[in-house]
Amino acid sequence: MSAATILSLDGELAAAAAAGLARIRQANPRVHCITNAAATVFTANTLLALGAVPSMTIAASEVDDFVRGSDALLVNLGTMDAARREAIGAALDAASDTGKPWVLDPVFVHRSPERLAFARTLAASGPDVIRANADEIGALTGRPAGPGVAEEFARSTGAAVLMTGAVDAVSDGAHSLRLAVGHPLMARVTAMGCALGAVAAAFLAVGQAGFSAASSAALVFGVAGELAGKQARGPGTFPAALLDALYAMDETELARRVENRT
Amino acid sequence: MSAATILSLDGELAAAAAAGLARIRQANPRVHCITNAAATVFTANTLLALGAVPSMTIAASEVDDFVRGSDALLVNLGTMDAARREAIGAALDAASDTGKPWVLDPVFVHRSPERLAFARTLAASGPDVIRANADEIGALTGRPAGPGVAEEFARSTGAAVLMTGAVDAVSDGAHSLRLAVGHPLMARVTAMGCALGAVAAAFLAVGQAGFSAASSAALVFGVAGELAGKQARGPGTFPAALLDALYAMDETELARRVENRT
Amino acid sequence: MSAATILSLDGELAAAAAAGLARIRQANPRVHCITNAAATVFTANTLLALGAVPSMTIAASEVDDFVRGSDALLVNLGTMDAARREAIGAALDAASDTGKPWVLDPVFVHRSPERLAFARTLAASGPDVIRANADEIGALTGRPAGPGVAEEFARSTGAAVLMTGAVDAVSDGAHSLRLAVGHPLMARVTAMGCALGAVAAAFLAVGQAGFSAASSAALVFGVAGELAGKQARGPGTFPAALLDALYAMDETELARRVENRT
Repeated sequence: MSAATILSLDGELAAAAAAGLARIRQANPRVHCITNAAATVFTANTLLALGAVPSMTIAASEVDDFVRGSDALLVNLGTMDAARREAIGAALDAASDTGKPWVLDPVFVHRSPERLAFARTLAASGPDVIRANADEIGALTGRPAGPGVAEEFARSTGAAVLMTGAVDAVSDGAHSLRLAVGHPLMARVTAMGCALGAVAAAFLAVGQAGFSAASSAALVFGVAGELAGKQARGPGTFPAALLDALYAMDETELARRVENRT
Repeated sequence: MSAATILSLDGELAAAAAAGLARIRQANPRVHCITNAAATVFTANTLLALGAVPSMTIAASEVDDFVRGSDALLVNLGTMDAARREAIGAALDAASDTGKPWVLDPVFVHRSPERLAFARTLAASGPDVIRANADEIGALTGRPAGPGVAEEFARSTGAAVLMTGAVDAVSDGAHSLRLAVGHPLMARVTAMGCALGAVAAAFLAVGQAGFSAASSAALVFGVAGELAGKQARGPGTFPAALLDALYAMDETELARRVENRT
Repeated sequence: MSAATILSLDGELAAAAAAGLARIRQANPRVHCITNAAATVFTANTLLALGAVPSMTIAASEVDDFVRGSDALLVNLGTMDAARREAIGAALDAASDTGKPWVLDPVFVHRSPERLAFARTLAASGPDVIRANADEIGALTGRPAGPGVAEEFARSTGAAVLMTGAVDAVSDGAHSLRLAVGHPLMARVTAMGCALGAVAAAFLAVGQAGFSAASSAALVFGVAGELAGKQARGPGTFPAALLDALYAMDETELARRVENRT
């Protein structure tokens, strides 16, 4: 199998992200989120700041209607319980029936064998994007994280993989991209990665394919984090500053920041 | 049936709201909230900033004791599940037994037929205040939102209806009021409307009747939103600024802002 | 039984707290939290700001793995339900099997007889620290809160008791300490006491015994609250300011503030 084409963070990527952002702000797509207790509020506020409309119910009896009425779905495993597990099954059935794109975020699968087994089933169920860090991908693939791991995982699942870390990596198996965006304080606030998964779902919701949606999300959210790092006095004031930056972000800013890097 | 008397936002309304606020700050009433996962923290902090004492448990086995020990109850349907549904039944039984006033907030009933059916039962169970937006009232009444819809819904339920939107409308069927208060950023932050429902419950808790409690809540919360709009740099910093404004708000400020409008 | 030795807030205590803080920042201990819905996010962010790694799942089927992989456990009763109750049992079994230290926070036990009965069983199950206010300790001991109540409760449970209020009291039965730290706004924001319980768990996680961990937590969190009180404009901006202060806090600052008091 040939190696993936290595893309670089350039004006074309910035333009695609900016176009997706403009589309989100214009269309206000609905994103249904089954996410964890620590991420619920920040995820909802991230989607609202971005221009999307979040819904967060995890009731299995309601989730079918909510997913059918949405434009994309986020499935995050951060705090699993019987109710969420049942809701995830119903949500994926509805997404499958109606062709809704979805993001899988297998939080903390390296900490619980039961959660890992469940996440493996989900990863094999056709997510458009999988958002995870190196530890989580290591647990899912059963091999140590290293160069090429995102690419291999993308090939084995058919998903675009967004591997977050000091440098983010995106791959759909055929194309790979590394993005050195973001701010160190993002590791000192809960639910930052979880919210990034929701941002990827919002880009899917306006028609971007997995690789584009994952790249756009990583760029837009990472740049918002960089801007927040200049406003915030620490991890307490950081999340509000990030939402302010996301809300105020414009296409020119995205393009300028990308150019200044290259 | 004759049309409702149309009231205007005037010094009398501001004085009633200010008196209720002073009473909340002095009596520290307890408000028990069965609310959704996205609203729990902001609702609790709104009540604390206002001077009330929130409790948030949704365990069906505990909710009876908590409601009996409270001065008012909030029932919000934002994230429904079997546990919350059972808790709501127990909470309403306790409120009914002890004559505690309560607020119904039928969030997102237009998105789920099951939730809509449940909300209709609750709306017919004697809430003192129903807080909802036009889409939700449209779903509950089965007719398009338009002039007079809050008034009609108030008559059919016996509740004071607080219909939120760019302009808020309050009606108990006999009296109606429109309040152009608030700030556009309130639509870009989750749980703002949910917190407003809790504020109405706090005004009920100090003895205001449905129409007064709904009007006072809309005015006090809306003015806090306007003040927050001047402090905040975007939707991220907005909620904290609103809580600061609510905590610092005084009677003179309320009266002055109302006078400047008329 | 002889009276406890009364300690004072001095340089030695500040040095122990500072050493524990340095150890948390260096070792990044894992703290598993079973906590309430209103406290989940702020507790996770408090641990991250401090340098610890939080996990928050309450799924009974996962909690065993998470506790075994952690360095300390927090059990907070703020919003009880059947799922949390089951999770607490599994978590305590795992903590007992593996000798993990744990903190009990019996929130609102004075409001629900059922919760009180459950909390009494937990208090008798060997927590290293119990964090509670006077009302809660009054309900647990069945006698009015007053001088010596923390000391007696510590003796009867074997735990170090951290009784929070305008002045905090810490006792392990043999030693007692009163700390006049903190800021009045801490009573106007939800989950402040809950987060303090998690901070105590973080100090346990790096090897401090109950009394030291409770004292260190009360001092570090209280000083962060004092610093936040200078930054914040009200209860809305207070929690973020507290996290910023916690993240930036250094040993010298702690020592200086303690000296200035004595």
